[in-house]
Amino acid sequence: MNLKVWCEPEPHAKKRKEIYLDNSATTRPYDEVVDYMERINRETYGNPSSLHLKGIEAERLVKKARETIAASLGANPKEIIFTSGGTESNNLAILGYLDANPKNGRHIIATKIEHPSVLEVFKRLESRGYQAEYIDVDEKGMLDLEKFRSAIKADTSLISVILVNNETGSIQAIDKIAEIKNSINPKTAFHVDAVQAYGKMNLTTIRGYVDFMSVSSHKIHGPKGAGALYVKNKTKINPIIFGGGQEKSLRSGTENVAGICGFGLAAKMAFDKIEENHAKAEKLKSLFINKLKTCSYELKIISPEHSSPYILNVSFKHVPAEVLLHHLESRNIFVSTGAACSSRKNLKSHVLAAMKIEKCYAEGAIRFSFSIFNTEEDIIEVSDALGAIVPKLQAIYGGKPQV
Amino acid sequence: MNLKVWCEPEPHAKKRKEIYLDNSATTRPYDEVVDYMERINRETYGNPSSLHLKGIEAERLVKKARETIAASLGANPKEIIFTSGGTESNNLAILGYLDANPKNGRHIIATKIEHPSVLEVFKRLESRGYQAEYIDVDEKGMLDLEKFRSAIKADTSLISVILVNNETGSIQAIDKIAEIKNSINPKTAFHVDAVQAYGKMNLTTIRGYVDFMSVSSHKIHGPKGAGALYVKNKTKINPIIFGGGQEKSLRSGTENVAGICGFGLAAKMAFDKIEENHAKAEKLKSLFINKLKTCSYELKIISPEHSSPYILNVSFKHVPAEVLLHHLESRNIFVSTGAACSSRKNLKSHVLAAMKIEKCYAEGAIRFSFSIFNTEEDIIEVSDALGAIVPKLQAIYGGKPQV
Repeated sequence: MNLKVWCEPEPHAKKRKEIYLDNSATTRPYDEVVDYMERINRETYGNPSSLHLKGIEAERLVKKARETIAASLGANPKEIIFTSGGTESNNLAILGYLDANPKNGRHIIATKIEHPSVLEVFKRLESRGYQAEYIDVDEKGMLDLEKFRSAIKADTSLISVILVNNETGSIQAIDKIAEIKNSINPKTAFHVDAVQAYGKMNLTTIRGYVDFMSVSSHKIHGPKGAGALYVKNKTKINPIIFGGGQEKSLRSGTENVAGICGFGLAAKMAFDKIEENHAKAEKLKSLFINKLKTCSYELKIISPEHSSPYILNVSFKHVPAEVLLHHLESRNIFVSTGAACSSRKNLKSHVLAAMKIEKCYAEGAIRFSFSIFNTEEDIIEVSDALGAIVPKLQAIYGGKPQV
Repeated sequence: MNLKVWCEPEPHAKKRKEIYLDNSATTRPYDEVVDYMERINRETYGNPSSLHLKGIEAERLVKKARETIAASLGANPKEIIFTSGGTESNNLAILGYLDANPKNGRHIIATKIEHPSVLEVFKRLESRGYQAEYIDVDEKGMLDLEKFRSAIKADTSLISVILVNNETGSIQAIDKIAEIKNSINPKTAFHVDAVQAYGKMNLTTIRGYVDFMSVSSHKIHGPKGAGALYVKNKTKINPIIFGGGQEKSLRSGTENVAGICGFGLAAKMAFDKIEENHAKAEKLKSLFINKLKTCSYELKIISPEHSSPYILNVSFKHVPAEVLLHHLESRNIFVSTGAACSSRKNLKSHVLAAMKIEKCYAEGAIRFSFSIFNTEEDIIEVSDALGAIVPKLQAIYGGKPQV
């Protein structure tokens, strides 16, 4: 049987310099992570459930990775469940908790700026009879705490909040949210989607306020296909995938050993230099903002002042974001028009809508997202490119109805 | 922040020869697959949902992999949904179909020898009010077709059958099962768990009889963390993981690009040599059986005559399987006492129980599972090892109550 289709390896990338500023969509894995995974794939290929040494060796490495992820959150290794990624973690926390705790009520709360992997789960739950409430944010993307306070009820089973928003970088005050929740209904479970925060800020204090925290590997230079869910000790939760009973029966299926271990090493590398990397990202973002402030064309910085240093959302008035994206792409500069997972569907951003960004700006919003692999030279080159492209596009599109 | 726990890379494996005969639990990835994944991780790290070239490049490779998997099943690429593995595929087919087709009835049928990723889903469905029926198999592990015929009802929504059993290698007659089903209730959906069959036998004819087929990457020398579900065109099915809408909204979450592409290449390599590999496995299995038939100690070959050439289940009378496993392990021979995913839980095999294997044999069952990396020398060495170990263990355990 000869398959006509050949999954041919990509020719080695041309050596032309790339400026990759789409790190909130996904990141380039650390070389050390790629090397480590390669070794595991070649040598430690056993099934962690196997009784023999090849299995025990694989299990040992998964255990190490679990200890690393737990330590990064100041948690116990028993509180870490490995999943296939952030989306599955968000799904498991919400669906798994509600399924296991039907008596806690059928009212659930999220912000209006959650990731689709939370919002779509909520929509699904609404169709199953849950009452879902989506709380407003202000123009800075910050949760309206008073509206949140008045939303919590005796039968609010769960709240879900995105710590660092994936489109704007806005950071929610988890401590205040937890305090309000606990003052009204301490039994309400608290899930935090920390996918864009993990490896980029210290989460041990925040972790202490919550019952669930979702994190992902491929946003921190680890491989795609791995993530984890922190489940606070003694929290009742049911699986959403059933089978051989791996991950304390919360996530069946043969463990993705190389993926999990690559994730563990990426977390180790990210957390070991977390302050240093944070300072570097801050410097890049400040430099970029300063460059933008001195430019002659109309723009709006959408990311609020106290947002993640890794994300800068900027809108160029009247310029359709996708057009600008492709102009930058022709210079080997890679950015995003919004969250990667919805960009192909050409949807309006629900995040910018919730922040009430005017139409002439919302449609021109570009997300620049940084990583440790970016340099000041990258930022200067991108600023120069924008200076060359944006005024021309504004001359073409300004005033005209947008595409 | 310095994490105390270090996810230290495994020292390079000692060069002592290993005989790995636990290929039904998991396989060693092809070197070509490891190399390909390494290149993708280093170069093609974009998010397939991103609009720019880095995303499009990643998407292109995923598309190639999808075409490969589709071609291997004689299916359309649109009918292939990538998942995190066989367990998720089994879950998605069953839970997703029933959720999308509530009016087709609440009666579901499986064999008694399904994998836990089907049986546990069925148990879960029973707790939700479904009526599940588990059909007997004979002493050869073959589905009792008459009992199956009388089980199908007007409200039978779905049947699930394991094509090649993971413990014994027994192969079900999918054509006959489909014929019986269609003669009684053609609306009943048919899911086949083909995880142990995929890449080892031609599935295009069988695929034509079914609505769903689950396959996995790491059983065919691909990476762990990737699998696929064949979903027959126009079959209504709902997702079990919700979010950004990847995989035609049937499996949200950033695609595990390297894993999917590694899977695609492994499938290509397996199917290109499927007859040759099959003949080689048959030769190894025959050689092993012939060696066993000439030995002096009491044993029972549990795998039926017309079973997969890749699996040989043998029981050594009175010898506790785990004890024998560790004796073989001390000689760097790696085997299984049953399905890997339940071996740690020390459960009795539900498969051997369904086949009514006597206790003195069921507790001594060892699964030898072959791959293209095994040689005739391996088989001879294992036979010799058994000859040296088994009689001693039978002298110790024979007649005594087993541990």
